[in-house]
Amino acid sequence: MRMYDIIKKKRDGYELSTDEINYFVDNYIKGSIPDYQISALLMAIYFNKMSERETLDLTRAIVNSGDTVDLSDIKGIKVDKHSTGGVGDTVTLILGPMIAACGVPFVKMSGRGLGHTGGTLDKLESIEGFKVELDREEFIRNVNKTNIAICSQTSNIAPADKKLYSLRDVTATVDNISLIASSIMSKKLAIGSDAIILDVKVGSGAFMKRLDDAINLSKEMVRIGTNYGRETVAIITNMDEPLGRAIGNALEVKEAIEVLKGGGPEDLRELCLYIGSILLKLAKRVKNQEEGIRLLEEVINKNLAFEKVVELVESQGGNVDQVKNPDLLPSSKHVIEVKSKMEGYVNSIDAERIGACALRLGAGRETMDSVIDLSVGIVLNKKVNDKVLEGETLAYIHSNDLDTANEVKRELYDIIRISSNQGKEKKLIYGMVTKDGVQLF
Amino acid sequence: MRMYDIIKKKRDGYELSTDEINYFVDNYIKGSIPDYQISALLMAIYFNKMSERETLDLTRAIVNSGDTVDLSDIKGIKVDKHSTGGVGDTVTLILGPMIAACGVPFVKMSGRGLGHTGGTLDKLESIEGFKVELDREEFIRNVNKTNIAICSQTSNIAPADKKLYSLRDVTATVDNISLIASSIMSKKLAIGSDAIILDVKVGSGAFMKRLDDAINLSKEMVRIGTNYGRETVAIITNMDEPLGRAIGNALEVKEAIEVLKGGGPEDLRELCLYIGSILLKLAKRVKNQEEGIRLLEEVINKNLAFEKVVELVESQGGNVDQVKNPDLLPSSKHVIEVKSKMEGYVNSIDAERIGACALRLGAGRETMDSVIDLSVGIVLNKKVNDKVLEGETLAYIHSNDLDTANEVKRELYDIIRISSNQGKEKKLIYGMVTKDGVQLF
Repeated sequence: MRMYDIIKKKRDGYELSTDEINYFVDNYIKGSIPDYQISALLMAIYFNKMSERETLDLTRAIVNSGDTVDLSDIKGIKVDKHSTGGVGDTVTLILGPMIAACGVPFVKMSGRGLGHTGGTLDKLESIEGFKVELDREEFIRNVNKTNIAICSQTSNIAPADKKLYSLRDVTATVDNISLIASSIMSKKLAIGSDAIILDVKVGSGAFMKRLDDAINLSKEMVRIGTNYGRETVAIITNMDEPLGRAIGNALEVKEAIEVLKGGGPEDLRELCLYIGSILLKLAKRVKNQEEGIRLLEEVINKNLAFEKVVELVESQGGNVDQVKNPDLLPSSKHVIEVKSKMEGYVNSIDAERIGACALRLGAGRETMDSVIDLSVGIVLNKKVNDKVLEGETLAYIHSNDLDTANEVKRELYDIIRISSNQGKEKKLIYGMVTKDGVQLF
Repeated sequence: MRMYDIIKKKRDGYELSTDEINYFVDNYIKGSIPDYQISALLMAIYFNKMSERETLDLTRAIVNSGDTVDLSDIKGIKVDKHSTGGVGDTVTLILGPMIAACGVPFVKMSGRGLGHTGGTLDKLESIEGFKVELDREEFIRNVNKTNIAICSQTSNIAPADKKLYSLRDVTATVDNISLIASSIMSKKLAIGSDAIILDVKVGSGAFMKRLDDAINLSKEMVRIGTNYGRETVAIITNMDEPLGRAIGNALEVKEAIEVLKGGGPEDLRELCLYIGSILLKLAKRVKNQEEGIRLLEEVINKNLAFEKVVELVESQGGNVDQVKNPDLLPSSKHVIEVKSKMEGYVNSIDAERIGACALRLGAGRETMDSVIDLSVGIVLNKKVNDKVLEGETLAYIHSNDLDTANEVKRELYDIIRISSNQGKEKKLIYGMVTKDGVQLF
């Protein structure tokens, strides 16, 4: 088999065989196929697409390039949750304790964030002493004891994905449904959960800008998961404006704690309850989503969800005082108010640009070597469609550097658009995709 | 400027600016853009094509990546000739002395061959002592004295083409008209000739398999040459069967000498006279092609063309005795006859496969480091549409290894197809492309 022939075959619009897909993934990982041949193949895939069979084969080859994590020692039905990534997406931090408080094991292996804000692990590290590196025994012991553990992925999960993604990232070959789906799903499938729920973001702050693309990606991922024998559900959710109000690591932890205590922003709470109710249904803890939502509201109201996050932090060595009193979390030197120059309604808040501002303040990584400033970020005081008076606060900038804060302030005036009329209400949840089909709301 | 944006722009179907094209060529040569980004761009170009403007810019950027050769010290109108490469293509070796014998300077800088047989330089090196490395002064002195010099290209002609071609060759991105045209033309344009004649081969033994593609490539190259202020003519010629009868370096030299003496295979002689007549017209030595053909026949009949090749070999240090008596050229240990097993007519002789046989015998290079065996090759005794009796010789295999010769013999029985009916006569010259348009015969 020659890599040249594989590139040419795909270039000419033919389907690659299972052997050919295994050949290029295996040999790329071994280093016997150079980057320049793989990037040419990826560009040919971009243009000529992959069939469903090829996508499944690619996913399997990527899973097989590394280790798999056996979770069979954990009692109960394990449901893994994944978000395709949004701005201010603190769902995992809220969902985990809520679900665990309902008696369902929540096991989550996360990666580090790259881009506008940190990932779940970075956010958790805002809590002093919180240990994200757990070995397998520790991880399983914790879950069996407290029903919850959140830790970092072993470095050898789907190594082919890491190598392929780095290459795609610099060769403009990221935007292909098969490549995106196999990349996400290979990492999920390498971890032995029973069911998978995928939160596919769509909108200005998401990777997928168009609903159509989000639906197609969802269908592809559900098909892959189902084919692997995992019950897989995707929900498609709005990421035109940031989720919740906080963008930034410690700021998001604080917001998550508010939701667990029964408060917090309405959209964030609603999405957590919705995803949680699907999760409880997948785990057979409840019969339907309505029952799930009632149960989740109950664990919040009875303070069980909050007690669970305390338990999680305690068992992973974190400073529980910071959870009980979030003012003890890392905070920035300066908090600058952005006050509205006019009266009206918030028309739009471009999530991607807000994310870029948070990154500039230091809340995210530009490269994998960047050091995150856990204390900084932005807190929105107004969300889309809120009424605003002249002089009212639109947002707070948390920063350790006044010059950067002022730059961000100028930019926020352009990002947070005010108009005289109230806009149409936007859906938070667009629809759901299961193996039975697409359901749009 | 970022290479990522350039790849994405071409991927998305937009035209690259002159600056963007210069940026990627310059920085690729400097080593500051990696192969894997260039190969992704090349694949995007394969799919989305380049506009005429982009192709011109790419050609110019490749020319500018290296040195140009100033030929203004040579008196008269200099015409450069290039073939896109075929099997048994000995035209340059015949054309040069013929043209020079007509009093028109023939200057030729050639590369080494890669593939089925050697290039013009390799063929000339069949002649003992023939020196292909001439410095500029020597080269110009020779042309001004004898009207002819054939030498190797300086290593710094269009280095970007070398680098790009090597990459295209292993990433299935060779087959694109803009990339092929800019690759060929950049090397021609870097050498300061006044006019250019291109022999574009089409058929089983050529890079272009279809007449349409050959026409498009010709139009593109003529457009580029014209735009550079060089009068450029392309002729499109048949390469379904090998040109002439000999395939192999010394064997082709012998055949070239036969043609220069007034003999040799009809198709080879016809093509040389045809190309030569265009060349004489471009050089303003004759008014039209008919006059050109008459003049060329005259220099052959008066033995002036043969005397010129003797002069060429002498002035470049070669053993003139081998030209006067070609039996002194390198010859192989074994000559094996391939005799027909049936009576009929030769239906086809796949030029590409014959080329591959010659390569296996040692007549060509597999890699740039291969050492060529100058003595070996194949001589066809029958050409397409010839009548064949049972037991008559179809071809002679010249080899230094009997096992390989026997393998090739078995293969030749499959390559030289015999059928009971005579086929339709095939055109040798399909047409001509000039700046005024396409003319098919």
